[in-house]
Amino acid sequence: MRKYLRTLALLFTVPAMAQTPTAQLELEKKFDGLIDAKHIGENIRLLSAKPHAIGSAQGKLVAEQILAQFKSYGWDAKIETYHVLFPTPKERVLELTGPVKYKAVLREPVLKEDGTSGQDGQLPTYNAWSADGDVEAELVYVNFGLPADYEQLEKLGVDVKGKIVIARYGRSWRGIKPKIAQEHGAIGCIIYADPKEDGYYQGEVYPKGPYKNEFGVQRGSVMDIVKYPGDPLTPGTASTENAQRLDRLNAPNLLKIPVLPISAHDAKPLLAALEGAVPPPDWRGAFPFTYHVGPGKTKVHLKVAFNWDIKPAYNVIATLKGSQYPDQWVIRGNHHDAWVNGAADPISGLASLLEEAKAIGELAKSGHQFKRTLVYCAWDGEEPGLLGSTEWVEDHQAELQQKTVAYINTDGNGRGFLEAGGSHALEGLVGDIAKHVQDPQTKVSVWERSKAQLVANAASVKTKKELLARESVKLGALGSGSDYSTFLQHAGIPVLNLAFGGEDEAGEYHSIYDSYDMFVRFKDPGFAYGVTLSQVAGRSAIRLADADLLPFDFRKLHKTINGYVGELQAVLETERENTQVENQLVGSNVYRLAADPKEKVALPVAKDEVPYLDFSPLQNALNGLDKAAARIADTVAKQGGSPVLNKALYQAEQQLLTQQGLPRRDWYKHTIYAPGFYTGYGVKTLPGIREAIEQRNWKEAQEQIGIVSAAVNKLTSYLNQIL
Amino acid sequence: MRKYLRTLALLFTVPAMAQTPTAQLELEKKFDGLIDAKHIGENIRLLSAKPHAIGSAQGKLVAEQILAQFKSYGWDAKIETYHVLFPTPKERVLELTGPVKYKAVLREPVLKEDGTSGQDGQLPTYNAWSADGDVEAELVYVNFGLPADYEQLEKLGVDVKGKIVIARYGRSWRGIKPKIAQEHGAIGCIIYADPKEDGYYQGEVYPKGPYKNEFGVQRGSVMDIVKYPGDPLTPGTASTENAQRLDRLNAPNLLKIPVLPISAHDAKPLLAALEGAVPPPDWRGAFPFTYHVGPGKTKVHLKVAFNWDIKPAYNVIATLKGSQYPDQWVIRGNHHDAWVNGAADPISGLASLLEEAKAIGELAKSGHQFKRTLVYCAWDGEEPGLLGSTEWVEDHQAELQQKTVAYINTDGNGRGFLEAGGSHALEGLVGDIAKHVQDPQTKVSVWERSKAQLVANAASVKTKKELLARESVKLGALGSGSDYSTFLQHAGIPVLNLAFGGEDEAGEYHSIYDSYDMFVRFKDPGFAYGVTLSQVAGRSAIRLADADLLPFDFRKLHKTINGYVGELQAVLETERENTQVENQLVGSNVYRLAADPKEKVALPVAKDEVPYLDFSPLQNALNGLDKAAARIADTVAKQGGSPVLNKALYQAEQQLLTQQGLPRRDWYKHTIYAPGFYTGYGVKTLPGIREAIEQRNWKEAQEQIGIVSAAVNKLTSYLNQIL
Repeated sequence: MRKYLRTLALLFTVPAMAQTPTAQLELEKKFDGLIDAKHIGENIRLLSAKPHAIGSAQGKLVAEQILAQFKSYGWDAKIETYHVLFPTPKERVLELTGPVKYKAVLREPVLKEDGTSGQDGQLPTYNAWSADGDVEAELVYVNFGLPADYEQLEKLGVDVKGKIVIARYGRSWRGIKPKIAQEHGAIGCIIYADPKEDGYYQGEVYPKGPYKNEFGVQRGSVMDIVKYPGDPLTPGTASTENAQRLDRLNAPNLLKIPVLPISAHDAKPLLAALEGAVPPPDWRGAFPFTYHVGPGKTKVHLKVAFNWDIKPAYNVIATLKGSQYPDQWVIRGNHHDAWVNGAADPISGLASLLEEAKAIGELAKSGHQFKRTLVYCAWDGEEPGLLGSTEWVEDHQAELQQKTVAYINTDGNGRGFLEAGGSHALEGLVGDIAKHVQDPQTKVSVWERSKAQLVANAASVKTKKELLARESVKLGALGSGSDYSTFLQHAGIPVLNLAFGGEDEAGEYHSIYDSYDMFVRFKDPGFAYGVTLSQVAGRSAIRLADADLLPFDFRKLHKTINGYVGELQAVLETERENTQVENQLVGSNVYRLAADPKEKVALPVAKDEVPYLDFSPLQNALNGLDKAAARIADTVAKQGGSPVLNKALYQAEQQLLTQQGLPRRDWYKHTIYAPGFYTGYGVKTLPGIREAIEQRNWKEAQEQIGIVSAAVNKLTSYLNQIL
Repeated sequence: MRKYLRTLALLFTVPAMAQTPTAQLELEKKFDGLIDAKHIGENIRLLSAKPHAIGSAQGKLVAEQILAQFKSYGWDAKIETYHVLFPTPKERVLELTGPVKYKAVLREPVLKEDGTSGQDGQLPTYNAWSADGDVEAELVYVNFGLPADYEQLEKLGVDVKGKIVIARYGRSWRGIKPKIAQEHGAIGCIIYADPKEDGYYQGEVYPKGPYKNEFGVQRGSVMDIVKYPGDPLTPGTASTENAQRLDRLNAPNLLKIPVLPISAHDAKPLLAALEGAVPPPDWRGAFPFTYHVGPGKTKVHLKVAFNWDIKPAYNVIATLKGSQYPDQWVIRGNHHDAWVNGAADPISGLASLLEEAKAIGELAKSGHQFKRTLVYCAWDGEEPGLLGSTEWVEDHQAELQQKTVAYINTDGNGRGFLEAGGSHALEGLVGDIAKHVQDPQTKVSVWERSKAQLVANAASVKTKKELLARESVKLGALGSGSDYSTFLQHAGIPVLNLAFGGEDEAGEYHSIYDSYDMFVRFKDPGFAYGVTLSQVAGRSAIRLADADLLPFDFRKLHKTINGYVGELQAVLETERENTQVENQLVGSNVYRLAADPKEKVALPVAKDEVPYLDFSPLQNALNGLDKAAARIADTVAKQGGSPVLNKALYQAEQQLLTQQGLPRRDWYKHTIYAPGFYTGYGVKTLPGIREAIEQRNWKEAQEQIGIVSAAVNKLTSYLNQIL
């Protein structure tokens, strides 16, 4: 379910680590020679040939095809099966019952230009983990359905309690929208694609162009994965056949209200019928009428019911045992399940992964002995909530924490620029690789091209200048939305998440039009970036597999965390000044006098003042980490690696976990990275502190400074002990 | 034709001048008592009862009604007639000829909710001063038709030479759009109202709400008034009956290409038919399809022909002779001609003016003797290009420069906040009045309310804080778009331009729906702000008429000009840094590498570097002005006024004129204020310098610094001589 929000990484540089050895570069050249665009394309066509969601017969067939391919490449491969809850629709009804009648189509039409669009076996348009429900109520438009949107509704005097809300896709992960709606007392939630964000406003629509046509619908999970992902019935443990399961109705990350995603075509009559206040400009989409928020005479009837079945999730796990350090594992993964055909999501990433496996198999056959064990995985059930990967990590957690050097994730691919996120101690590795891999369109390195794009699109000349001075890739921080999540945020295993994109903008996401026909026209024609992704992700895997000294550099991590702390201090300072000035304006009646007396809009009220927080424990902790990281870097530069040292290095990130977990979501253990509680996929760095500040919970913010400081100190002590 | 762009005034304060005398305040209280909302409303109904454009029988009748009113209020009134060119349509055809056919409606429908919308005598929808023309060509969409839009088209490889362009209303004065189109070789220009700026995107459309419905059309002049306004055949001289006239085809401010304004309804099929590149997001309006720029198969046929008649322009001039200084004139004006019924534009302002005249007449009858002569004017022919006022000022220029204390303009009115612009030496006068007049909705002073609105809507907390510290009204600088222009920019006479607005947003402007029915529902229900405008503008007039010491404060002028110089230095500095960084990016191939190779978009090229300019002559000149202004203020505070001193004060602004005029438009003589050569109504302060910088003409910018410095020095010497 790739489509995470990109994070602007920060602007630091530290000296590069040791040069990549010549033998390694030669191996990588051979590796490149074994990557074949045509074969990647054939695999995309093969694996996206039919709808293959988790639990479907075709899904099983796809897992078996992948298994066979791994085996044919010389890998030791097997399927590990978990038994997970997965709802599919039994009934879906949405109708406008007043003042005019309209019955929603809830169906994407077959297109003659899209050969697979008329196939049997497609999952209907729905949001997995909606509750069963049959409700009829007045409709309220809630914009993107974010907390700030409900604040705006309150200003307009609109309460969604007992109402059905309609929110547009965008600005947050979709699951956040019904969650916040439910928190505000709504009894149902409709999510639609406004043509402003995802349709004709953006460009030509499918099949003429790549953007979403009026009937396109984004399926997707609305599980509250920011509490925990995986099977909702087995948080923290594996969904084995006989595992103890929660009662579904008590699962803390499942909604109590019905939710349904709909097309622009179906949303249009609903929104057109609304009356009530006209919301501010940033609430207005691209439909040709005046947007209103309701409520009023406009009533809708929403009825959804699901088959709540336990389904097998088939993770395909392929292993190539290491010659020197078989108990040090480099894991690489991409999911194989799709909402429908999934040519882009996930198959384009999976085809690159399989191509790497093929090349690695060839290298092994031709005599190269990889030092560490390579584990290549194709996950099932990612779409409904990272089911396959989460259950697998939860199942093998202790062993994985012992053995995993790093987990390298992909989740689809397209034409454009390198997008890389992950554990910042691995930033140097990705930076070096990005300088060695060529962009297929411009023939400069993918680093140079992605830097050019950052610079060219920066909002200010000041930022352009700063970015131009950047010397290497800055990794984005990772939130959630793909299979790296459990490795990183629950188990503290270093991860990377890699993709190309930015020149593949389209509207096929999670629709029946995410097809091979769409892919070859608009996403990665010729599969050139399929090759490039294999080159980057494959290099990451084989360098880690063969490195004498694992390329973890904690100076990069220190610089990054230090940057986050600076950000938070600035946020707090700004919020303090804003609060002070706004309270002054409230006190001096400015908003009352400026308001239009004919419009009933609630006025801003005074807020509690922002206290000064004590960041010194964290600043001192980071000072310690700085020294420890520098000492490690100096020492290993002189001494080189050793099996014990390497193990200590890759396990270091686990020190940043806090056993108590994040507030109100203890499955999430990482103190540096988490998805946002009210934003979803998008990352919140230093989440405990940052979200407390955002929620104006100053006490918790101070406590969390202590918790993060302790974690950083733990890492520092650990680093000081390993050498 | 009010609808000028507001300018954010600057943030300075200087000590207030002397207190307003008690007797004056008592007079103003009496004056207030004579202002009657009901009567204002009756006048709006009466004078907007039928379409009354210049040259129409009804126009003449309206002038006569105004004349009669002035006389009945005890004024000495007459009509001064000029003979001006005024084109009216003979033929208007717009059709899409390929690939599909569409014939434009070009007509606003009668609405049962709008009692005057079906009257005879309406001018059809057209742009006055379009050339006659019959052209057929491919269509190109040019966004707002600004210079930057043509730069974007060039990037997309689109040339408008020999094409017909379609531009949307907004972001510039309308006349700029065909002017720039013509400069780029277009052979025709269509201007339409996109629902994004002026229609359903903004809110409910008429008659349900106030915004423009799909058939509404904005008429208006496309004379190049930034070269010179008034009768295009008599630049700089009066259009008397036997005046020498230019050949129309040689008039330098008239277009050579045909232009036609159309409704959203008529624009929709044209834009929908376009193909070619999809332009960037800020080119996309609110039609429900993907916007394209063309050109291609989409061809249009545009045919317009006009009656190029000389028409009488009836200026109604009412005089109440001053008892002490009959040769010192306070002039107050608002135009009476309208594109159609013009309830808001201009009648709402005119009704306030007449109410002031009525009250002043009553005060005179009851024994009050105004010291100076009051001249109340109702101008004809403002809509096509400030014809009436310009010809009058050009006719009487020498006398007016001798006698005019100030010209106080209005041009329509609505509910909301005080909007005041003008000569900055009068800033203190307006500031004091704004503190004495009550806002009818909130009962605080209009100053307090307008300040609250500025503060509440400021973009940043920093700006809010600064604005909150503001102690009095800051006058906006004036560009063009109403009858103050010739007084100020050609003759150097101090002016004020006053209105209320901001809570009267609507789409009636220059359409048949600018009616009494619309006005009483959406613009100023109950005419409360009609009263308030009378109170502010009337006070301005009678204070200036009775002041022993005229309230000119050149310290305010100095501070303001000083602020403009700071702005220009900052602009230059920013442009220097931007140019340097952008050239570096061009040189290092950043834009080429970042560009999508599949899209043919021209890349940025290096620009000439920005030199350092010598601002010191201007800084020294301002330093001199600062001292002279302070000395004057000190001295008059001690000595009080005298007829000679007062005359010297009100004539001072003429020192800021430069006899050679602005580059390429020598009719404009003022060195501090002018409308923008490429923006229209919107002001450019220090226009000679600012526009040279904007055009990257560094040599001219330096020359203009010299010219402005000389003007400021001239003012300083003048001020040093009068005391």
